[in-house]
Amino acid sequence: MRAELVFVGTELLLGEILNTNAQYLSRRLAELGVDVYYQVTVGDNPERLEGALRQAIGRADVVLTSGGLGPTDDDLTREVAAALSGRPLREDPAVLAEIAAWFERAGRPMTANNRRQAMVPEGATVLPNPVGTAPGLIVPVGEPRQPGGEPPALVLMPGPPPELTRMFEDHVVPYLTRRMGGTPLRLFTRTLRFCGIGESALADAVQDILAAQTDPTIAPYAKPGEVHLRLATKAADAAIAEARFAPVVEAIRQRVGQHLFGTDETTLEQAVGDLLRQRGWTLALAESCTGGLVAKRITDVPGSSAYFLAGYVTYSNAAKMDVLGVPAETLAQHGAVSEATVRAMAEGARRRSGATVAVSVSGIAGPGGGTPEKPVGTVWIGLAYPGGVRARQFLFRGSRDHIRQVTAQYALAYLWAHLREGR
Amino acid sequence: MRAELVFVGTELLLGEILNTNAQYLSRRLAELGVDVYYQVTVGDNPERLEGALRQAIGRADVVLTSGGLGPTDDDLTREVAAALSGRPLREDPAVLAEIAAWFERAGRPMTANNRRQAMVPEGATVLPNPVGTAPGLIVPVGEPRQPGGEPPALVLMPGPPPELTRMFEDHVVPYLTRRMGGTPLRLFTRTLRFCGIGESALADAVQDILAAQTDPTIAPYAKPGEVHLRLATKAADAAIAEARFAPVVEAIRQRVGQHLFGTDETTLEQAVGDLLRQRGWTLALAESCTGGLVAKRITDVPGSSAYFLAGYVTYSNAAKMDVLGVPAETLAQHGAVSEATVRAMAEGARRRSGATVAVSVSGIAGPGGGTPEKPVGTVWIGLAYPGGVRARQFLFRGSRDHIRQVTAQYALAYLWAHLREGR
Repeated sequence: MRAELVFVGTELLLGEILNTNAQYLSRRLAELGVDVYYQVTVGDNPERLEGALRQAIGRADVVLTSGGLGPTDDDLTREVAAALSGRPLREDPAVLAEIAAWFERAGRPMTANNRRQAMVPEGATVLPNPVGTAPGLIVPVGEPRQPGGEPPALVLMPGPPPELTRMFEDHVVPYLTRRMGGTPLRLFTRTLRFCGIGESALADAVQDILAAQTDPTIAPYAKPGEVHLRLATKAADAAIAEARFAPVVEAIRQRVGQHLFGTDETTLEQAVGDLLRQRGWTLALAESCTGGLVAKRITDVPGSSAYFLAGYVTYSNAAKMDVLGVPAETLAQHGAVSEATVRAMAEGARRRSGATVAVSVSGIAGPGGGTPEKPVGTVWIGLAYPGGVRARQFLFRGSRDHIRQVTAQYALAYLWAHLREGR
Repeated sequence: MRAELVFVGTELLLGEILNTNAQYLSRRLAELGVDVYYQVTVGDNPERLEGALRQAIGRADVVLTSGGLGPTDDDLTREVAAALSGRPLREDPAVLAEIAAWFERAGRPMTANNRRQAMVPEGATVLPNPVGTAPGLIVPVGEPRQPGGEPPALVLMPGPPPELTRMFEDHVVPYLTRRMGGTPLRLFTRTLRFCGIGESALADAVQDILAAQTDPTIAPYAKPGEVHLRLATKAADAAIAEARFAPVVEAIRQRVGQHLFGTDETTLEQAVGDLLRQRGWTLALAESCTGGLVAKRITDVPGSSAYFLAGYVTYSNAAKMDVLGVPAETLAQHGAVSEATVRAMAEGARRRSGATVAVSVSGIAGPGGGTPEKPVGTVWIGLAYPGGVRARQFLFRGSRDHIRQVTAQYALAYLWAHLREGR
């Protein structure tokens, strides 16, 4: 099957927004085995939009559009699709009721403009939009190209990515799948997420598995502070894909399982939270250069209050002494960014909060504050636990923001590795 | 002048990369006053690429392309442009020497394939590429459309964004400027950023200014916890634009200046930092549901150690009592999410740190923890300052992540408004 994509919106032509829908839809259509030869972006202009849709529907079985379904006068995709297909617009009472209910739930008044979104071309299929007010539409255009086939169709979707992705997955994927004859091969992936090991060391350890593997394919990806192995296979259903993944995952696990913190969407903060829960342990944090970022990530996880007791963002030396009990002599002799200081910070956070473990961070995020001995990017991470205290030095490069992000990532990785050892 | 954009690469059609060039070129062309009505993406297929270029050059004065200039067999843009323009390709010795020098500098061997990049259509202009090996090309196509004018042209640029942006700025902008007759109008913008006022209230307050204003145009944008007014004008230079902005900004400032925290890229945390610096004040934070996010934002600003002393992420009630001295009775009687608790948290953070002001946050970010009296999204924000303590209740909707983000934004806005009053 052949599809084309038409993106509608003057804001795209002016470069006011980045067209992430283009990548999303392209990737998903490739995964579904649908060919896409052209993508076109046009503005909110009825003649040019109609021309672009007419050309696209002449070349493809299905034309997917995003944008131009909103309530304002410059949202024209619905009207243009109706005119192009020769299908008059009629107000759909069910759609109108849906829209009214949406405004009711949102506690906002429904304006007259919003009624336009309930207009449906005759014979079109309505695609519900649980995330917003603009429903999607499948509008058949002309006659089937093969006897007994379906006519070409315009599939109109809203532009905001949360609305588009939800509608695409829930309604357009089943539609395309059905049009292609039932159960085409779909792409399934399994991402294995590692920390505490570099990309080349990981690739070395599983070199022969990577080389011998053709289905599923395996590709390594490096991200700051973690490495992923992404397994991919095309299969008719999840069970078939799972059967292909399982032995490969097991082989990889036997080699480097001690660094595997999660699969697919699992974040490092979730993996840390899971281990804390399993052990019945609690956590405290003492942060300097990350300024609360580690605590923010720990508390991103719903239910983190079960194990996270307190974070101390001790930005000033006075706060390090007062709250964490870091001795003035330690700061004077070794400085705030030093092994002695992060050890004292971790011990202080653990003592003060009563937590089982505490992680501490102190470093120079820049752009100022670096010296020849301790350049920008110098970071110490400490860990206090029932059996003692540990600390490790790092040197990161990059912008202030990057150094802070990577430091938080390594602090979590340091904690995860420790929890995994069970100490 | 009218331009079209053609993006070349099967990797774009497969969604393997995000097309950031589209936004970059669109924004820059808009700023230069060049109209763009269509953008097209095609794969590495000579027939479809030629068709797309032929259609584009039929509609526009200049067609800008990105991609397909590399050394491999699927890089076809140069060959297709030569065929379309009827200009035979010839090896250009100067370009070849440039490419050889590039490989010399990079310490990599030059392959036979790379010689292809030295092929230049007869009569085309070569655009140097200091960042990579593929030079750009300006290829005239056909005859001028007006007597004495220039013929339409294809402007071929490499796909990698660092190469494309450098070539566009250094060579294509001067070319377009010259074609437009010297000093074209460029788009200038000024964004005014407000907090502590809603979009409709702001629009009401400046309704007549918005309605009467045609140059610069003014458009309101709402973001969580802040509202922007974006002024835009096309002018030959910044001084002319500034002269148009100044009286409008002044008129707006007189109406709603008390909510204006910054212009253009200024963030709320920068605005807060600037006010703290001006007053010589210091800051402490006591966070519960935001879990360190407010501290993270404050410390995103380089140099924030000059005024930020400490943050206390008191997630547990024990930490609220221990570190901040919140009385056990307050927590027992009113709960952790209450006016009494955030007042005590702010006072405790201010006392403990010795800071001039302290902001406190306690709320229910969800998804669990809500009750009929205190549903998910209930948030209290407190503020302790030299003259006393204040607190305010909010009710936010949305996901855990959204509630946390908005809460942090409102906490900063609450602090900013207070600092602005000078209390």
